[in-house]
Amino acid sequence: MELSDIYEPVQEDLAKVEERLKSVSKVDFSWLSELLGYSLKGGGKRIRPTLALLSGRFYNYDLERLLIVATAVELMHLATLIHDDAIDKSSVRRGRQTVNKLWGIEPAVLLGDYLLAKSSDLAAATKNLRVVKLFSQTLMIISGGEIAQAHSAFNLEQTRENYLQRISSKTASLFTLATESGAILSQAPEETIEVLREYGHNLGIAFQIVDDILDFIGSEEELGKPVGSDLTQGTLTLPAMLLLERYPEDNPVKRLVQNKKNEEDIKLAIELIRNSSIIQECYEVASDYSARACRKLELLPDNVSRQALMNLADYIVTRRR
Amino acid sequence: MELSDIYEPVQEDLAKVEERLKSVSKVDFSWLSELLGYSLKGGGKRIRPTLALLSGRFYNYDLERLLIVATAVELMHLATLIHDDAIDKSSVRRGRQTVNKLWGIEPAVLLGDYLLAKSSDLAAATKNLRVVKLFSQTLMIISGGEIAQAHSAFNLEQTRENYLQRISSKTASLFTLATESGAILSQAPEETIEVLREYGHNLGIAFQIVDDILDFIGSEEELGKPVGSDLTQGTLTLPAMLLLERYPEDNPVKRLVQNKKNEEDIKLAIELIRNSSIIQECYEVASDYSARACRKLELLPDNVSRQALMNLADYIVTRRR
Repeated sequence: MELSDIYEPVQEDLAKVEERLKSVSKVDFSWLSELLGYSLKGGGKRIRPTLALLSGRFYNYDLERLLIVATAVELMHLATLIHDDAIDKSSVRRGRQTVNKLWGIEPAVLLGDYLLAKSSDLAAATKNLRVVKLFSQTLMIISGGEIAQAHSAFNLEQTRENYLQRISSKTASLFTLATESGAILSQAPEETIEVLREYGHNLGIAFQIVDDILDFIGSEEELGKPVGSDLTQGTLTLPAMLLLERYPEDNPVKRLVQNKKNEEDIKLAIELIRNSSIIQECYEVASDYSARACRKLELLPDNVSRQALMNLADYIVTRRR
Repeated sequence: MELSDIYEPVQEDLAKVEERLKSVSKVDFSWLSELLGYSLKGGGKRIRPTLALLSGRFYNYDLERLLIVATAVELMHLATLIHDDAIDKSSVRRGRQTVNKLWGIEPAVLLGDYLLAKSSDLAAATKNLRVVKLFSQTLMIISGGEIAQAHSAFNLEQTRENYLQRISSKTASLFTLATESGAILSQAPEETIEVLREYGHNLGIAFQIVDDILDFIGSEEELGKPVGSDLTQGTLTLPAMLLLERYPEDNPVKRLVQNKKNEEDIKLAIELIRNSSIIQECYEVASDYSARACRKLELLPDNVSRQALMNLADYIVTRRR
């Protein structure tokens, strides 16, 4: 199933979110406007806004507030990407040059701050204090979690549990922000909010594991960035951790961690991971989370939104980009 | 008059704000806790929390919410300082090493994000949506304004109006956030909110002009950073702009702008500015804003808070650090 088919029930609303994202760049100051325009038309799958829209369709479908919150979630996502790229000195994302590559780290940090502020401003525009709190707390989880990640980069003692915690704060938190906010704004009962929250969490974990797999098995063209870039940054993801577990004595990941960057070892690690059952094993973990996400949904009324959320969970583990 | 005398009416409450700032660093993850602890005990005059507390004492004195908002304003201020230092690669602030100097730019950006999130979380805890909105909009003004400043650094075409706009978004915005939020939370009538908002704005402008003067005439020990650091960063402040106006043909500021950094020209510019009437002229501009701030206050009931705000406006133009 293609993503466009899955998005079908919210296609029109999603086009409105796209309009609102565009309108964020309509500001007085021309250079700010240029930076915003560039960042906001970077594309991406818009999964988070879609999750907010779909999650808001089980009870009172309050379209105006859903559009606001869907836009706000995507802005927070973009802001964190811009800050991440600035910190990591990444030059390419989604096949385009990053803000820090084009204009330097200074505007990248400030642009990220501006987008965080705009996101929080939109959250306030929902006039729902619970949603406002969710936004600020999600950013605390993401930035606090990233500080943890910065500390664990190039660290061999990382366990799988650490990894799950890391991707939970980095990725799943924004997914749950989307689903939980959508549910709250539709005035869903608490049990439904909890179901959608947990769906978002499990989906987010599955999504990130697949992202980490693709970083090893994708092509540069599919990824929109170099293959193996996590390892190059010193970030140990699930595939690399499994390689370490499998050959604890001597292996390229261990050497990379001990001697830092080395082109040959990165290539070798990619080869070893690609040609082993590690990828299969990682997919099994991702599929397990995706299945958990779906099981949660069975408690909700059977409608097109629920079906779309189920399809999304399937799509996420089969996607190639 | 000493700052401690001026702060006297809110001394106890300010001690509670200090406690709350400390408690922000009590988080599970030890490295984050260490970074927060370091940043939060950096001192500073705590002018912004004081403004919030004083502004909230004209009508219903809702201490709990005022403490929350006073803490939140200071956190936003600290977050923007941490991001600024990271961007400017500054190594010293208030006589202490900066976060980016000690731990690198990565944790500095993330720590700033965390503090912004915490600030916004506290704003939400006031349960006042107008205050929540003020917080997000203030951050939009600050970061948007700084993007403007980044663009105008080393730019000779800057007018005084640009300068005032820049310091309005950089500094006065946080002062008005403090006074306006305090007033709103005390359920003051709209006219009072407006009076305190304008007081905050004028005070903020005066405060920043004096800061920019001190950058030229202070000692490194008083400043807690090198003398002339604005000029070194390529930021033209009022004293440098007046020097440009006075000697348009040839002067060290012009050369600095054209050829970038040059130790000799920075020293010469500092000398020329110190030994001219420029400093006096700048002080007159600052005093004018300080007087405007006080005039606004005459519309408010005459009580110890009003007197403290008046005294603060006097203090701000006579301070040495």
